[in-house]
Amino acid sequence: MALTPSAYTDPIMNERKTDRYEGRYAARTRVMRSSAMRDLMSLTARPEIISLAGGLPATDSFPQDVFDRINRHISDTQRALALQYGPTEGFDFLKEDIATIMASEGTQIDPAHVLITTGGQQAIDLVTKTFIDPGDIVLAEGPAYAGALTTFSTYEADVRHVAMDSDGLIIEELEAVLDTLEAEHRRAKLLYVVPNFSNPGGTTLTLERRRRLVDLAAQRELLVVEDNPYGLLRFEGEPLPSLLTLDAGRGNVVYLGSFSKIISPGIRMGWTVSPQAIYQKMVFGKQATDLCSSPFTQLFVHGFVSSGAWRDYVERLCGIYRSRCNAMVQALSEEFPDDASWTVPQGGFFVWATVPGIHTGDMLAKAIGENVAYVQGSAFYQDGQGVDSMRLSFSAVPEERLVEGVRRLGGVISDQIELYRALGL
Amino acid sequence: MALTPSAYTDPIMNERKTDRYEGRYAARTRVMRSSAMRDLMSLTARPEIISLAGGLPATDSFPQDVFDRINRHISDTQRALALQYGPTEGFDFLKEDIATIMASEGTQIDPAHVLITTGGQQAIDLVTKTFIDPGDIVLAEGPAYAGALTTFSTYEADVRHVAMDSDGLIIEELEAVLDTLEAEHRRAKLLYVVPNFSNPGGTTLTLERRRRLVDLAAQRELLVVEDNPYGLLRFEGEPLPSLLTLDAGRGNVVYLGSFSKIISPGIRMGWTVSPQAIYQKMVFGKQATDLCSSPFTQLFVHGFVSSGAWRDYVERLCGIYRSRCNAMVQALSEEFPDDASWTVPQGGFFVWATVPGIHTGDMLAKAIGENVAYVQGSAFYQDGQGVDSMRLSFSAVPEERLVEGVRRLGGVISDQIELYRALGL
Repeated sequence: MALTPSAYTDPIMNERKTDRYEGRYAARTRVMRSSAMRDLMSLTARPEIISLAGGLPATDSFPQDVFDRINRHISDTQRALALQYGPTEGFDFLKEDIATIMASEGTQIDPAHVLITTGGQQAIDLVTKTFIDPGDIVLAEGPAYAGALTTFSTYEADVRHVAMDSDGLIIEELEAVLDTLEAEHRRAKLLYVVPNFSNPGGTTLTLERRRRLVDLAAQRELLVVEDNPYGLLRFEGEPLPSLLTLDAGRGNVVYLGSFSKIISPGIRMGWTVSPQAIYQKMVFGKQATDLCSSPFTQLFVHGFVSSGAWRDYVERLCGIYRSRCNAMVQALSEEFPDDASWTVPQGGFFVWATVPGIHTGDMLAKAIGENVAYVQGSAFYQDGQGVDSMRLSFSAVPEERLVEGVRRLGGVISDQIELYRALGL
Repeated sequence: MALTPSAYTDPIMNERKTDRYEGRYAARTRVMRSSAMRDLMSLTARPEIISLAGGLPATDSFPQDVFDRINRHISDTQRALALQYGPTEGFDFLKEDIATIMASEGTQIDPAHVLITTGGQQAIDLVTKTFIDPGDIVLAEGPAYAGALTTFSTYEADVRHVAMDSDGLIIEELEAVLDTLEAEHRRAKLLYVVPNFSNPGGTTLTLERRRRLVDLAAQRELLVVEDNPYGLLRFEGEPLPSLLTLDAGRGNVVYLGSFSKIISPGIRMGWTVSPQAIYQKMVFGKQATDLCSSPFTQLFVHGFVSSGAWRDYVERLCGIYRSRCNAMVQALSEEFPDDASWTVPQGGFFVWATVPGIHTGDMLAKAIGENVAYVQGSAFYQDGQGVDSMRLSFSAVPEERLVEGVRRLGGVISDQIELYRALGL
C-alpha cells in the first residue's frame, strides 16, 4: 500500500462533514430547511388540501395513445439499447432533438455542446460540482429556485442574492454586488438566473436587461448560469432571446434546460449547453455522479420529440396553464387585501405574492388548518429575506379549486391581520 | 442584498476549482484518466473488436413479453404517476421489493432504511457527498471499481488503497493502514469494499475475513461502505452473509445495491441501506442532486419484481455468465504464459489477470490493433499500482468470441515478451 502525503493535515478540516461525537456518523450539512420543504410537500398531498405549494406539471394530460406508441416502438426495435448503459453525454439523436426544441424558442445551438442530464436538477448539480469548492461565492437572483439553493448548500457555497423587481434581476444591484466583492478581493464563481417566468418570482427578464447582463458578464468575466425550464410555456407574446444567444459565442453563459415541464418530470431528463472547456468537466462530473442518464427514458423522449407530438402537447399545456394563471390572478385581486401585491406572469407556473406585515412562515400552519397550502417566501432566500411573501403555484390545480384556494387564503390573511390588530402589532 | 461575512477569504482557495488564466472557465479536476477510460469504451464499441473491456450486462436476453406486459400495466393504471415527480426517497412499494430481493441473498432489512438511487453509481456519489470534504481520507480496496475512484476524486478525497489477495481485502493490511493514519492523527472517513465477485478483482471476501472486518470497524469506528451489485450473480455455492448482516445493527455499514446487473442498467436504479442518521443526510443530498429517481423506471422495476419474473431472469443470467466465465478461465489456461495468474470468480463479470513484467497500459494499443480490448490494471488504482495487471470482462461476449479474444490477447502478450527479450529488457 502506498500512503501518499496529503496537503490537508488539519484534523478539524478532516472532520468537517462528520460529527462523530454527536451521533457518531451524522454528517454536518444544512439539512433542516430542506426537510421542512419536503415535509410541506408530503403534507400537502392530502386530498382535502388545495395545494398552491408544489410546482407540479399536469401530467394527467399526457395522451395515452402517444405513450403506448412510443413504448411499442422501443419494445420492437430498441429494447436492448433501452436497457443497456448509454454514453455519459447522452445519445446524439436526443441532442439533435434538443437543438430543434431550443430553435423553436429562437436559440440556435450546436448539438455537440449538449450534455444530457438526469433532469434539470442534475444540470444545476453538475455546474455547481464543476465550479464550487466550500466557501466559494455563488450569486443567485433573489428570490431564487429553492432547489438550486439546496444544491449550492450541499457544496457549501457562500450564496449572495441579487435583488429582482417585476422586470427580473436588477442590473445595478448586480453591479453593486460585484463591486463589493472586488473591494473584498473576492470573485463570484457564477450567477444563477431564471430569465423566463422565474421560479418563484414569476418574472421575466426584459430584453434591455438581458443585453446589459451579458455585456456586464463579458466585462467582469462573470459566468452566467441561465436556467430555462419554463421558456416554452409562454402565454402571450414572442419569446425573448436567451442569454446564450445574446452572449454571441463569448463563452460566458452555461444554459440549462429541462423536459420536466414540457414532457414529464417522471422521466428525469434535462440538459446543459456550454462552452467546450466546461462541457468536458461536466461530462466527467456526470460520469462520477450517475454514469449516464437512462437510455430507456432518453428513447422515450426521442420518440415523443421526433414524432412532432411535443408541439401539440406544449400548446395544450400552455392553454391549460394560461387559464389557470388568469383564474389565480383574478382571484387574488378579489380576495387579497388592498396593500398586497403580486407578479402577473407571462408564462410558467408561479405567482409571487407579498402581503406587507404578514409573516408567511408563521401563517402557514393556520392556512393548512384551513386546507390551503403555499410555500413561504423565506424558502427562496439563503439570508432570511422574503418573510412577508409567498409562492403560489397554479400549474396543477383546476380553475375552480384555484379560486377556492385563493379565497381560503384570503380569509386566513384577513384573520391574521385581525389578530395582529387585536394584539396591537 | 445582504452580504454575509465568509470564513473563507483566501483568494487561492476561492479559485481552487476554476483556472481563469488557462482557459478562463476550465475547472481544475482530475479529468484525464477518466476520459481515457471513456475513449477506450467508445473505441471498443467497434464491431470488429472483441471487447473484454466493458462491464456490460447481457440486456439482449431481457424477455420482450415481460417488457411489454410491464409497460402495458403502467400505461393503463399508473401513467400520470409514472410521468410525475416522485418522493425523493423513492416509492415505498419499491423499497419493499428491495427488502425481498435482499432477503433472497440472506440479508434481512427494514424497508424504511432504503433510499432509492439513480443507479448504483449515484449510491456511491451520495455516500461520498455526505461524508467527504476536499482532502478527507477514503480507504478503498486495491484494485477498486474505477467508477468509485472517479467519484472520490470529484470530491477531492485522498484515496489510500488496502491490498487484496484471492480471498479479498487483507485485514492485516487494513489494520496497518489504520495504525499509520492514527500515528498521523488522521482518520479515514470510510472504507469502500465490494465483498462479492469484486470489480475488477473477481474475488470474494471470505466469511472469516467478513467477521474480522465488521469487528474491526466497530473497534475503530470505521464506516464500511459495502457495495454489492453482483451478489445475486453467484455461479456456485451459497451466498455469504453481507457485512450489513454481520454488523448486526451496530451501525457501521452502509450497504449499496443496484438493479443494473440483475434487471437493466438502462433504467438507472439502485439503492442504499443505512442507519437513520446517515439516511437523512443522503436524502438531502439526493434532493439536491436530482430531486428523485425516475418514477417511470421505478414502476418498471416494481412491475418486474412484484411479478416474480426477476427470479427466473436472474437464474437465466447466472447460467449465461457461468458458461462465459468457464470459457474464459479455460482459454486463459491455454493461451496465457506460464507465469501469468488470474482470479477464478465464483460469480459476477470479471477476471483479474496479471502477467509479470508486462506493462498492460503500453500493450493496449497493440491489442486493439489485433482487435481485442481490455482495461489496464492501473485504471483501478489511484496510486500507480496494477501496471502488469488487466481486467477481463466475460459478461457481454458469447463463448466462442471470448475464446477467440483470449487467444488474440495471448498472442499479443507473446509478441510483447519477444519484444522485451529482443530489446534486452
